[in-house]
Amino acid sequence: MKVVYTDRHAAHDPQTFLVRGKILRSAEQPERADRLLDGIRRGGHQLLEPSDCGPGPRAAVHTPEYLEFLSTAWEQWRALPDASEEVLANVRPMTAYAGYPAGIVGRAGFHLADGACPIGKGTWDAAVWAAHSAVQAASLVAGGERSAYALCRPPGHHAYADKAGGFCFLNNTAIAAQWLRGTHARVAILDVDVHHGNGTQDIFWRRSDVLHVSLHADPQHYYPYFVGYAAERGEGDGEGYTLNLPLPLGTGDNAYIDTLGMALKRITAFAPEVLVVALGLDAFEGDPLKGLAITTPGFARIGAAIAGLKLPTVLVQEGGYLAPELGDNLASFLSGFEGR
Amino acid sequence: MKVVYTDRHAAHDPQTFLVRGKILRSAEQPERADRLLDGIRRGGHQLLEPSDCGPGPRAAVHTPEYLEFLSTAWEQWRALPDASEEVLANVRPMTAYAGYPAGIVGRAGFHLADGACPIGKGTWDAAVWAAHSAVQAASLVAGGERSAYALCRPPGHHAYADKAGGFCFLNNTAIAAQWLRGTHARVAILDVDVHHGNGTQDIFWRRSDVLHVSLHADPQHYYPYFVGYAAERGEGDGEGYTLNLPLPLGTGDNAYIDTLGMALKRITAFAPEVLVVALGLDAFEGDPLKGLAITTPGFARIGAAIAGLKLPTVLVQEGGYLAPELGDNLASFLSGFEGR
Repeated sequence: MKVVYTDRHAAHDPQTFLVRGKILRSAEQPERADRLLDGIRRGGHQLLEPSDCGPGPRAAVHTPEYLEFLSTAWEQWRALPDASEEVLANVRPMTAYAGYPAGIVGRAGFHLADGACPIGKGTWDAAVWAAHSAVQAASLVAGGERSAYALCRPPGHHAYADKAGGFCFLNNTAIAAQWLRGTHARVAILDVDVHHGNGTQDIFWRRSDVLHVSLHADPQHYYPYFVGYAAERGEGDGEGYTLNLPLPLGTGDNAYIDTLGMALKRITAFAPEVLVVALGLDAFEGDPLKGLAITTPGFARIGAAIAGLKLPTVLVQEGGYLAPELGDNLASFLSGFEGR
Repeated sequence: MKVVYTDRHAAHDPQTFLVRGKILRSAEQPERADRLLDGIRRGGHQLLEPSDCGPGPRAAVHTPEYLEFLSTAWEQWRALPDASEEVLANVRPMTAYAGYPAGIVGRAGFHLADGACPIGKGTWDAAVWAAHSAVQAASLVAGGERSAYALCRPPGHHAYADKAGGFCFLNNTAIAAQWLRGTHARVAILDVDVHHGNGTQDIFWRRSDVLHVSLHADPQHYYPYFVGYAAERGEGDGEGYTLNLPLPLGTGDNAYIDTLGMALKRITAFAPEVLVVALGLDAFEGDPLKGLAITTPGFARIGAAIAGLKLPTVLVQEGGYLAPELGDNLASFLSGFEGR
């Protein structure tokens, strides 16, 4: 399989993770990409550098104000007296009638959804190249490849049209899916990350041309907490084009594969021309952000089940943290997907 | 003037203040009440302990879920592994279709609006007694006193029906105003705190029986950032019953008094039967949260101007931080208000 990767991701090395009232080092570290690359190299895949696809694809998903903020926030923040090294929000809008403030503290509060999306000096550059990688993989598939994988870092699926969140800044999965709408009429997204793909869901919430299906740990007790419930089905034209399949914390391979069958059935009924998989590997039983309990061989079964759709498929890396088996899990998924 | 005060406020001694990406000690310290009390004692006012007015007045303003959360959050938080001493949110709901999670991390994200409302062991008790104090002052005025002052701590005006924020948990001002609706048909609130009274505004946003007028530093560059703009006028029945008068940062006495004249004119036109003043003293030129530049004699002028309305008046303490002149500023306001 063709794999799109650039080491420019390493410019983003977030140190800030506000969790349970403490500021810890982020779990979304550059070393993740090294481990994933190990998994790729063992599979004998073909590595490609992404090319610069310009600002168009990200602008088709994100708001102008948000893109302007992301590209300038760090410098404005560092110009404040007594500010931290990385941009971290301490306020947020709370009402539908909220205005858009002029200063960086207010704007950080507007655009940063949680304590897991600090902006450092190299964040914008890394996020832009992660999005380029996703578009490159999509263009390979649009050009006739049966599948392609984008090793994106930072991940993307928690990013909204106008907000970062959960280690994510630009929504690589949504950008790839929207780009594919230029070549395909119906696009399905399947999110197998342990966390609900809340940003992606919201971006396509009112649309019937992009189906969004997510399997994830039950948000009652797990990030992103406020969305990812089964009752959410989309609105307006999008009603019925969002499907959430929350799973009890600790769910293992067999129950997961059963539920995945429901997801695949919905995708088949939608009859898409192309599939984008938001490929988180953090459903792993040994992942530091422990939510579900998929085994390494379990990822091969998941990959094989998805391949059974027989759709042109863009794989976009989402979460999956520093377990020793991170590369093994990617290799396992890809071998199952390719039927090797 | 009768002054309602209890030392039970001291149970709330917040250590956490997330600001510009760093966790500092809160500016809302128990010593504030000591300094305010100094100002009271010099004026020869009569100190009264509040009595327990029961859960009714706070339940008339806040949601059941929020009150349950506030009263139980600290114990649930401390039961988490590796949690901080005080409850601090790291997530937040971002969509209109947000659900209400079951766990404490999600619920903290739902109910805590910013990094300035940490819940400690004694927060609930202190907040409840601050609200009792405000109700007691209101009941003195309803019973015939020309005015009464509640030395509330923690303050209240940033608290929404279902959210804490900006050092505030129960909205003492809103609770007093709502309680007064049981005895008076039309209640006006005048908020002279340096920060916009966003929680109070939102609580009465759709109502025409309670007028909300706020003078404050321009939210473009100042807390609460997202609301407090002049264009906000209320909605539905409440349209026209919200008046915001944002002032440029650094505004001094004369320009403030001019703008206060517009506020008083609107209040007069509303023809209320009773007035509640959200009495922040943080518009002071030496306040640590520097926003405006009112002098100590300036507070006497503000007090005198408000007294010119000749309305029964409940004064509810809001902000005002640890400047050496904090007690002087209260004494100055009260002497101006009483024409001494």
